[in-house]
Amino acid sequence: MLSFESDYTEGAHEAILQALTATNREQLPGYGADRYTERAKEKIRKACGCPDADVMLLTGGTQTNAVVIDAVLRSYEGVVAADTGHVSCHEAGAIEYTGHKVLTLPGHDGKMDAEELRGLLAAFYGDGNHEHMVFPGMVYISYPTEYGTIYSKAELAALHGICGEFGIPLYIDGARLGYGLMSPAADLTLPELASLCDVFYIGGTKVGALCGEAVVFPKGEAPAHFFTTVKQHGALCAKGRLAGIQFDVLFTDDLYFKISRHAVDMAMKLRDIFKKKGYRFRLDSPTNQQFIILENRQMEELGRRVRFGFWEAADKDHTVVRFATSWATDPAAIDELDGLI
Amino acid sequence: MLSFESDYTEGAHEAILQALTATNREQLPGYGADRYTERAKEKIRKACGCPDADVMLLTGGTQTNAVVIDAVLRSYEGVVAADTGHVSCHEAGAIEYTGHKVLTLPGHDGKMDAEELRGLLAAFYGDGNHEHMVFPGMVYISYPTEYGTIYSKAELAALHGICGEFGIPLYIDGARLGYGLMSPAADLTLPELASLCDVFYIGGTKVGALCGEAVVFPKGEAPAHFFTTVKQHGALCAKGRLAGIQFDVLFTDDLYFKISRHAVDMAMKLRDIFKKKGYRFRLDSPTNQQFIILENRQMEELGRRVRFGFWEAADKDHTVVRFATSWATDPAAIDELDGLI
Amino acid sequence: MLSFESDYTEGAHEAILQALTATNREQLPGYGADRYTERAKEKIRKACGCPDADVMLLTGGTQTNAVVIDAVLRSYEGVVAADTGHVSCHEAGAIEYTGHKVLTLPGHDGKMDAEELRGLLAAFYGDGNHEHMVFPGMVYISYPTEYGTIYSKAELAALHGICGEFGIPLYIDGARLGYGLMSPAADLTLPELASLCDVFYIGGTKVGALCGEAVVFPKGEAPAHFFTTVKQHGALCAKGRLAGIQFDVLFTDDLYFKISRHAVDMAMKLRDIFKKKGYRFRLDSPTNQQFIILENRQMEELGRRVRFGFWEAADKDHTVVRFATSWATDPAAIDELDGLI
Amino acid sequence: MLSFESDYTEGAHEAILQALTATNREQLPGYGADRYTERAKEKIRKACGCPDADVMLLTGGTQTNAVVIDAVLRSYEGVVAADTGHVSCHEAGAIEYTGHKVLTLPGHDGKMDAEELRGLLAAFYGDGNHEHMVFPGMVYISYPTEYGTIYSKAELAALHGICGEFGIPLYIDGARLGYGLMSPAADLTLPELASLCDVFYIGGTKVGALCGEAVVFPKGEAPAHFFTTVKQHGALCAKGRLAGIQFDVLFTDDLYFKISRHAVDMAMKLRDIFKKKGYRFRLDSPTNQQFIILENRQMEELGRRVRFGFWEAADKDHTVVRFATSWATDPAAIDELDGLI
Repeated sequence: MLSFESDYTEGAHEAILQALTATNREQLPGYGADRYTERAKEKIRKACGCPDADVMLLTGGTQTNAVVIDAVLRSYEGVVAADTGHVSCHEAGAIEYTGHKVLTLPGHDGKMDAEELRGLLAAFYGDGNHEHMVFPGMVYISYPTEYGTIYSKAELAALHGICGEFGIPLYIDGARLGYGLMSPAADLTLPELASLCDVFYIGGTKVGALCGEAVVFPKGEAPAHFFTTVKQHGALCAKGRLAGIQFDVLFTDDLYFKISRHAVDMAMKLRDIFKKKGYRFRLDSPTNQQFIILENRQMEELGRRVRFGFWEAADKDHTVVRFATSWATDPAAIDELDGLI
Repeated sequence: MLSFESDYTEGAHEAILQALTATNREQLPGYGADRYTERAKEKIRKACGCPDADVMLLTGGTQTNAVVIDAVLRSYEGVVAADTGHVSCHEAGAIEYTGHKVLTLPGHDGKMDAEELRGLLAAFYGDGNHEHMVFPGMVYISYPTEYGTIYSKAELAALHGICGEFGIPLYIDGARLGYGLMSPAADLTLPELASLCDVFYIGGTKVGALCGEAVVFPKGEAPAHFFTTVKQHGALCAKGRLAGIQFDVLFTDDLYFKISRHAVDMAMKLRDIFKKKGYRFRLDSPTNQQFIILENRQMEELGRRVRFGFWEAADKDHTVVRFATSWATDPAAIDELDGLI
Repeated sequence: MLSFESDYTEGAHEAILQALTATNREQLPGYGADRYTERAKEKIRKACGCPDADVMLLTGGTQTNAVVIDAVLRSYEGVVAADTGHVSCHEAGAIEYTGHKVLTLPGHDGKMDAEELRGLLAAFYGDGNHEHMVFPGMVYISYPTEYGTIYSKAELAALHGICGEFGIPLYIDGARLGYGLMSPAADLTLPELASLCDVFYIGGTKVGALCGEAVVFPKGEAPAHFFTTVKQHGALCAKGRLAGIQFDVLFTDDLYFKISRHAVDMAMKLRDIFKKKGYRFRLDSPTNQQFIILENRQMEELGRRVRFGFWEAADKDHTVVRFATSWATDPAAIDELDGLI
Repeated sequence: MLSFESDYTEGAHEAILQALTATNREQLPGYGADRYTERAKEKIRKACGCPDADVMLLTGGTQTNAVVIDAVLRSYEGVVAADTGHVSCHEAGAIEYTGHKVLTLPGHDGKMDAEELRGLLAAFYGDGNHEHMVFPGMVYISYPTEYGTIYSKAELAALHGICGEFGIPLYIDGARLGYGLMSPAADLTLPELASLCDVFYIGGTKVGALCGEAVVFPKGEAPAHFFTTVKQHGALCAKGRLAGIQFDVLFTDDLYFKISRHAVDMAMKLRDIFKKKGYRFRLDSPTNQQFIILENRQMEELGRRVRFGFWEAADKDHTVVRFATSWATDPAAIDELDGLI
């Protein structure tokens, strides 16, 4: 059955499988000390325009968020996030498990509003004594957001500027980074994004890899002994080559960007088909995730012909569903969808 | 350069890469709900002779230890381990990070002594009030141990019996499980091992997989909502297929056991070569890790021709080094080694 | 200067100091094994109408919340609270420090709405798969709330009933319990309250003691080895007599209730005075905390003659301030206040 | 019955009760912002010869150890302690609960050996890669130790010097600090001790107070926002006056030292009585705790006439028991003991 259920339904880009196969019998040191990991890091530094960046390869998104946030925050600090942010609601309390509170601001189609952030930080650090409260010690946003929306360069600069004023780092969850940067609506390059935050990660799992996320500290300011913190969180793979080879391939000849662009192209086509047929959207998403409002009976019926993700109830008769494209989406599938809806 | 540095220097058994490639474009649900993961679990249950077992696939050894120990222990309990156990010293405090103390007993060539375990548990639970101390809530052993040694069936039964007397579970870290079970010195089958503990894991990362460990609760007694605990620890992979396909392959046609046997065969040959040439051993290991005592100058000199692992200082002039074989060891490499030492 | 800043500005009820002095040289066992602690527990059981209750004496409110919530919840669970609940915002992340998320519902003058609670629990447990989210494992309310309001018996029964339907415990933070129960608006007795929840604590620090909170599990269902969990949290006092003697005194001849009644009487007088002079209130509080809205200049000016607590901004020109009475409030102070405002 | 069971069997020095009573109705701000706490801190700074010291008053010993160690260590670090240290074995895993491993060295009559410490630190930091292990980030000793022994100035200087070489802080648990400093065997003053460590605490609970320990960072280097960390650990008392007044009294006219001296004098008399009658000692303790080896039947029999603490089995026929004196020991009790043994 046709499936637009998520952007992690296929394995990996074939070039990755080929590289894994080609290098398979090379004897390499473990834990990321191999040459492919080194090469991947160097290519990522170059793609980010950050020659001094610290780069570390981890396995999955929730893991990466928990490790980074815990490593960067001091014990008495929490992380500020939109209430729709992944760390706020869909990580089974992984952040709280590390001892840190997630302080929430309302999400606006998934995005954090700069003035609301300033309000929260000013209220805390501005005046009065807040020693009985959690210190906002970091700001978390996702790019694109959980609703597929993206920040403009100006919006990102505003958030980063506010963080700077208050001396706290801005962290960008880039689980679907490529699908944001390659959106026709994006006015940001990867180096620009890297210059407008303090730490971010480049998502591999949802963008062509079997697994793997690349954490980047653009200015080379990874917390001391970050390697050991990764190990302590159970996030260190013995065969570092697995992530290393994958990111080496993804950052060769712009593959990461090319396959991201493909996913967005497919999404735009998919969006147009739904629009043309009069479907309503939860919001206007310029990336690979499209949120469509279906009447419940219609949802049930459509669900027999194509797979998609349940997102949230819209009202008692309607539901928001998600159609996701990815690096792996077959153009023929889009055409087939056209005939089904 | 010839390398016996570790058992994770190569990628994966080729059958795994082939299966990953063959299934690559299949659209599968995430988080372990795919059919390959289901099939792998079913095959593992069968291989363990545990039709009701709960099986869960994780990524790496330290991660697996931390998740299992934290999920099984109650907050006020700690885990008993040999002082040479992996959880005691080589996991960067990952167990303590989850809030639990590792209570140590002396390791005897890596093994825990049943009577010493009984002594520790009897001293705590026997009489007197120990409410100000950490409750021993679980026993951790590795099979084979960090020194390559293995427990006999009688030894394992003794440990399991003692745990049963005190009502606490026995957990077996099987990072190199195949290399233990396939040892000529082993008098245990996998179903026997499964029946002599309460939870264990079958190591994939060091036995032919790119990554992946299969946690088995033989009697189907996984802690409630173990899935969510895994997620909370950042240990859940979106593409569950990666581990699922690998374990499906490893447990097809006894591949796991065949490649384990190969590693042990290679190790026995390697051992004989060293013995024949008069080298001294730190202890008699019947599995894939061999610990040889080298005079320091000899170590330096040999290190120029072959890679091996530094293990520990023996005395000021001698060092214990480790030679590891694996599923991937080329018989020719053993012959070549013969000419080098 | 006249002070209504808080209900912990004085030391302890004199009967407590006398008892501490009278028993001072008695040699007593430590850690709560003394006879005064036993006596206090017995009196508390009687006052609660719970002959089988488990009672444990701790030191302070945040400590008690963290210990109880962590001890009762399973690792993958969080606690549901009003967003104005003490655990949500004024405990410096003490709950998250134990690894658990605080899941919030909107506070209505400090209170949780039963239907909103049912909505949250039904959405989670009702249908669909929420394995990637924190399980709501306990409900936290305060009585009286942080805004001085109290639940009616019917409201409490509704919350308790909903918790029962979903099989999760209801926990009542009674930091100011006496001031709630002795309110003229209260339609609840202590035994009734005890029968309408699963665990609660009787606050001492704010109701006549130097320090001390009495945790009560009405049905004797304290978590296994709760004593050790208390120790593990650093919450166990060597001189258990300190809390034991205090609660023994407080629960002798209804002292706890008499001094609570006094505080509420004083608050009602204070409220009338403010009302009479035309001051506006943030809400109608029937307990010892009164929340008054002052024009900012007025606040500054009044602040020179009497101490009160800053609570929150009402709008840019007005501020909500708190006047608190307590067991120690001198009636003459109320009269004096009348002349000052 | 005569009791030498512990040094916390009585309440508080009478001067403390008098001060609590005399100040009882003063209205004071909470959380340690009162003038008695300020005065206590100032007196402690003076007694320590550390005008810039940060001082913080907490409630109990285990709490203090957990808060200080967690606040000072970075996430990937553990604390080095003697295996007989309180944090190693008698705090129910309170340190591990904060996520940190206790790394042990053998205790020598309770003391840590400087060369063994250097060995541990040199092995870790000296050479090789230990990124998979817990970083030793702090050294914990107790003064006096759990066996009543004390470090000489030279021994303490040696430990402190080694810590300095490796750039990690030395922390002294002074639960019984007065009983060490006032020992005839002590060659250290409080200012000297303060200059030979990086953080320590002055125990109140066992030296005349109802509760309370004063943490001192001699050079004013408390971790940032230590107050909030204390709150986050549930260790902050609303009525800070309780600890403040007690330490104000204890550090007025050298009361702390005078009552400590009394306890040690009583212990020396007690020791002489046991010695004179031919009893054997587990070790030579110059402080308020005396460890005597009793034949088991003798122990039982003596236990009918006087209370003492069970310490540990010596062999199958003998037991080590503890007799403790304190600030409250009545000289007549010592005389009475003379007649009983």
